[in-house]
Amino acid sequence: MTWRKNPLHFLKQFSKLSAATTAGAITLLSIYVYDKRSSKAGLCASWTNVSEEIPYPKIKWNHNWDRRDPKSLVKPSKNGVVEKDENNNIKNDILDVTPTATRNILLIRHGQYNLNGLTDTDRYLTTLGRTQADLTGSRLKELDLPYTKLISSTMTRALETADIIHKHLPDLPREKNDMLREGAPIPPEPPVGHWKPENYQFYTDGQRIEAAFRHYIHRAPADQTEDSFEIIVCHANVIRYFVCRALQFPPDGWLRLSLAHASITWLTVRPSGRVSLKCYGDSGYMEPKKISYS
Amino acid sequence: MTWRKNPLHFLKQFSKLSAATTAGAITLLSIYVYDKRSSKAGLCASWTNVSEEIPYPKIKWNHNWDRRDPKSLVKPSKNGVVEKDENNNIKNDILDVTPTATRNILLIRHGQYNLNGLTDTDRYLTTLGRTQADLTGSRLKELDLPYTKLISSTMTRALETADIIHKHLPDLPREKNDMLREGAPIPPEPPVGHWKPENYQFYTDGQRIEAAFRHYIHRAPADQTEDSFEIIVCHANVIRYFVCRALQFPPDGWLRLSLAHASITWLTVRPSGRVSLKCYGDSGYMEPKKISYS
Repeated sequence: MTWRKNPLHFLKQFSKLSAATTAGAITLLSIYVYDKRSSKAGLCASWTNVSEEIPYPKIKWNHNWDRRDPKSLVKPSKNGVVEKDENNNIKNDILDVTPTATRNILLIRHGQYNLNGLTDTDRYLTTLGRTQADLTGSRLKELDLPYTKLISSTMTRALETADIIHKHLPDLPREKNDMLREGAPIPPEPPVGHWKPENYQFYTDGQRIEAAFRHYIHRAPADQTEDSFEIIVCHANVIRYFVCRALQFPPDGWLRLSLAHASITWLTVRPSGRVSLKCYGDSGYMEPKKISYS
Repeated sequence: MTWRKNPLHFLKQFSKLSAATTAGAITLLSIYVYDKRSSKAGLCASWTNVSEEIPYPKIKWNHNWDRRDPKSLVKPSKNGVVEKDENNNIKNDILDVTPTATRNILLIRHGQYNLNGLTDTDRYLTTLGRTQADLTGSRLKELDLPYTKLISSTMTRALETADIIHKHLPDLPREKNDMLREGAPIPPEPPVGHWKPENYQFYTDGQRIEAAFRHYIHRAPADQTEDSFEIIVCHANVIRYFVCRALQFPPDGWLRLSLAHASITWLTVRPSGRVSLKCYGDSGYMEPKKISYS
């Protein structure tokens, strides 16, 4: 110990250290308080004059949510900065990967099915479910959009629904995908008492449904010249999760949405990556007594 | 200065102070790091195994969003704790204010209107707008729900739409409210280039539309014995904002939703305060060529 030899010198040194520590503590405290305040800053109902703040954090729209923002597709990419050439024009390599078409994705829930079935095969459409699917096929035909593809989950009730829809649109190419099967996407907030999947279901289904989202929901590629209209026949949980994810709403809020059998939910993804919900759970083309939810 | 008189004693005291400061700094640092980690913790697609975190903070459902949680209505209220009597039963004063009925709120956008009108009076429904309103009135009649009230904004296009709907439901009591008029609820995220209201519009409209939300969207009072079905005829921005707020989705995300003229959007508010969206922008009862958006 040197302080016994020269207590004054040691004290000076110690004092410096202590002052630094104190300054550090004050700095940390300031950062902490600042952070606390900025993370607490919620949304306001108007710019300045609010009687009470809406308890919601300000969350920016992620323009590169599908990792297809043109700037992120060219190398070397400069985070978020549009690269320009010497004449201040957007560089050709960015223009080459910039989408021009809009993707329309029509999500259809399967029709009502036999809830008593223990296996997927036994969970076939009820008579009402077949009627609902037929009405939806008819409505899609009536909408007369330039459909590009009819995609469906591989579960019996979704395949049957897609089969019935396909009768109305017989020329439409079909695609089936296991990733679209029903499951437990993410523990819902608020939690519900009556629906408690096992942890392993969220573990496996959640990852798979997120994979399906990344596969099907994204902006058009640059080489797509015409707007596209895809029909995806799948399941309530999958559709509700897709809608929350696509709109950048909290994904665990999916169970706040309720979805009628065979209803139409329409998402558009613009070339800019902006997403819009045109309708959710549209079943207005069915007689009221034909509408069912579970 | 006492340290010249007794440097050793002073050094001991100083050392204690310094140690305390250092300990304090470490504590602050720990809190800061912990907070950083917890505020950064986003939602996961599944419980544990994610290839990539979904960049969304975990936000709890606010059960007392309408300030009508029974526990918050009795005095003295113990924050969130259900008060029980000596026999471990929920206290009568809480049961007395506990709702039992569900409120159904059917939000109808007005029909297409004359966009060239400079004043509200000149922004009357077009022929198509009148047809849309008529089809919606007819659909509401067909749904045959025990409607309790027909409410509307006081703007010409909303009043005209409500008048046409009322012809289909002539016995329904009517109510008009200025708070439901169209406006700029909150600066949208992501921002849009083509729609730039003046700051004072968000300042005045935002507060008013939030006031309308608090007035019309809430759980049933305890003395409501039957489920209610209210029809509210108003405007696209108001409805989109109401939907985001009611579902506890980010309110500034309202412009991610698109809304067809005279379409039906159906919210239910359960006695527990849980909110569910049954459909959004349903216009399936209209021929496709009758559907319009702006």
